[in-house]
Amino acid sequence: MRDMSKNKMQTLKGFRDFLPTEARKRAWLRSKMIEVFERYGYEPLETPALEPLELFEGEIGEDEKLFYKFEDAGGRKVALRYDQTVPTVRVIGQYLNELTLPFRRYQIQSCFRAEKPQKGRFREFVQADIDIYGVASPIADAEAILVSIDLYRSLGFEDIIAYINNRDLMKDIPYTAISAIDKLDKIGVEGVTQEMIAKGMTGTKAKEYLEKIKNIKPDETLKIIFDYFKASGIDKRNYEFKPTLARSFSYSEGPIWEMVVPGYEAGSVGGGERYDGMVKRITGLDVPATGIAFGFDRTLEAAEQMGLIPEMKNSADVLVSVFNNDLLFQSIKVAQKLRDEGLIVEIYPDPEVKLEKQLKYADKKGIKKVIIIGPDEAKEEKVVIKNMQSGEQVKLDISSLIEKLSNVEPTN
Amino acid sequence: MRDMSKNKMQTLKGFRDFLPTEARKRAWLRSKMIEVFERYGYEPLETPALEPLELFEGEIGEDEKLFYKFEDAGGRKVALRYDQTVPTVRVIGQYLNELTLPFRRYQIQSCFRAEKPQKGRFREFVQADIDIYGVASPIADAEAILVSIDLYRSLGFEDIIAYINNRDLMKDIPYTAISAIDKLDKIGVEGVTQEMIAKGMTGTKAKEYLEKIKNIKPDETLKIIFDYFKASGIDKRNYEFKPTLARSFSYSEGPIWEMVVPGYEAGSVGGGERYDGMVKRITGLDVPATGIAFGFDRTLEAAEQMGLIPEMKNSADVLVSVFNNDLLFQSIKVAQKLRDEGLIVEIYPDPEVKLEKQLKYADKKGIKKVIIIGPDEAKEEKVVIKNMQSGEQVKLDISSLIEKLSNVEPTN
Repeated sequence: MRDMSKNKMQTLKGFRDFLPTEARKRAWLRSKMIEVFERYGYEPLETPALEPLELFEGEIGEDEKLFYKFEDAGGRKVALRYDQTVPTVRVIGQYLNELTLPFRRYQIQSCFRAEKPQKGRFREFVQADIDIYGVASPIADAEAILVSIDLYRSLGFEDIIAYINNRDLMKDIPYTAISAIDKLDKIGVEGVTQEMIAKGMTGTKAKEYLEKIKNIKPDETLKIIFDYFKASGIDKRNYEFKPTLARSFSYSEGPIWEMVVPGYEAGSVGGGERYDGMVKRITGLDVPATGIAFGFDRTLEAAEQMGLIPEMKNSADVLVSVFNNDLLFQSIKVAQKLRDEGLIVEIYPDPEVKLEKQLKYADKKGIKKVIIIGPDEAKEEKVVIKNMQSGEQVKLDISSLIEKLSNVEPTN
Repeated sequence: MRDMSKNKMQTLKGFRDFLPTEARKRAWLRSKMIEVFERYGYEPLETPALEPLELFEGEIGEDEKLFYKFEDAGGRKVALRYDQTVPTVRVIGQYLNELTLPFRRYQIQSCFRAEKPQKGRFREFVQADIDIYGVASPIADAEAILVSIDLYRSLGFEDIIAYINNRDLMKDIPYTAISAIDKLDKIGVEGVTQEMIAKGMTGTKAKEYLEKIKNIKPDETLKIIFDYFKASGIDKRNYEFKPTLARSFSYSEGPIWEMVVPGYEAGSVGGGERYDGMVKRITGLDVPATGIAFGFDRTLEAAEQMGLIPEMKNSADVLVSVFNNDLLFQSIKVAQKLRDEGLIVEIYPDPEVKLEKQLKYADKKGIKKVIIIGPDEAKEEKVVIKNMQSGEQVKLDISSLIEKLSNVEPTN
């Protein structure tokens, strides 16, 4: 009886399935990211999807209602991975003896937030983080920003901008004012002022804080970072000092930066900061830390919008059709021989299906070549290769077939 | 005050962190799996970590106490991904119009089960599934078994055995008897008999069922599968008919198989079956299905035990040291030039740290070459390259350095 209720079972709101074409795009972005991160010596780290709830509590500086939290069967309060920074900080404390400082790591996993589902906002989404542990020098911040710029340039975003500021220059401004000013680009001066007043500040104080932030000038730390970029040969259009950049996290300190793709409207594609204090708070250790979280979905969406994703090859090189039950094993032999040559080969897995329907399948899947082995071919120990675009058919022996397919592949 | 309680924060029981060396091994296995699956035309699919609880209910044929389930903030009963078969079946129903049948897909994601943590059993673990949808012919089962064998052979498990049976040959044996007989290798004839008696069968019936299963002979379906293997050129030692193989899932039907690595004691590394009925039950559609779930962790453990995992390169090609603040930017320039040549380059991210300590860092990380740019080298526009194994130091100009490093790399 329950059966019928399942018939229209759907994905939960805010969660997504990725069918092959989408999944391939994601695999592409993932491997590009890893390539860039590794180039600078960052190493992979994975943490569990579930953590003790108290690990995240008090660390986020945002609405903790967004936690996906529950009691496990043993009565333990747990939460799904809310971000990757906090779990990695736990790792630093838990395994310090096994790690060599400075420790550079990257992490690309799903995070979970009970957001109201809306366009471009999901409850399960992937973040890609890079962080450096054990270095207080702004050289570490500079490197993390350099990797951020290199990542987007490597993906083809030539105009990527890293907006940079130093949260330490806001030390005499309260956090509530900072978190309001962080929204300046979205809600304007009036909106920011109103938010500060709503939070209990006088209009005069609100204006004063805003003026103060607008007049921040680069300090020695930021100068070192900009000199670092010059020495690295980074194009000047790819970074910019921005006094009103504030970042919304309560734990941000020192250099802060956000990555913006001009023309992509959904918001910044990544944001980073120094967070030495959070490490101290969670681990009790003096291990300075800096790094950035890239939004995987936004980056992919921006890349799609800018036409930067290469065409995803989502089909086999060849379909080996099956003429009938008697000739099935001829087809199997040929298929396996072609796989041994490194080709991606599908065999049509049902001898009862007519050849015409098998050809239609190849067409629908975009498979460009179909091998046909009928009774005549089997007798002559040959195969027919059909070009699905031109319709041309050629009869060959197996060794010529292998030669033909192996030669054609690289230019495909 | 909360701070101090965090200082010894640990991973939850049954969950794991993967530090870089482990994470690299996992990435290796993942990419080997994908390579084999793609060779046969299987395509990637991803489903969410959370599903409606009722999707899994009644589908597992195991203890539903193992579900990680909770109510979300909106009062919806949800469960963490228990397996990948059931979510993919949902996908088949939800997106049938966007998919081309036959549909081959692979899926490699975490699954969650509230098991009692014990050696080799984890609450979050990765499964790697391949399945074919839309084909009733045993040709599909044969292909899935062939891919299973090819996967393990490609990983280097030359003695892998696919034990094969046909669940349809047990149609007159009740499921409780089948699930007891599935444990024959673990608990023996006596144990299996006792379990059947405990479940309410008479001793005579229990013996009768056991005898019946022991005397199963390959039917036409299994013969086609074995002929398929012969045509594919698969070594005979890699598959075997096993009449007492029963599989513990209530939904198994038709051909069933398990992958066993001789010498690896923790159990089978994968198990597969046909499950047309489950698809019908969940989607209401007649889409035949067959496939296998590989245990990622067991496969990795077996590969480790058999010495099949290649040495993981977990360090940069070069460390560019930083002599002091004045010479920092020279080092940055050289580092970036080497990265442009495709080398993996770390720069020591703190000019305040003494060269000696930077060299110790390279040593600890296993980085074989360190670039040193002191005041003399900077003046002469040269660099020193130090071989960390021999201790040898050579002074070179930048272009000779690039040539030296680029040439050495491929043979490393």
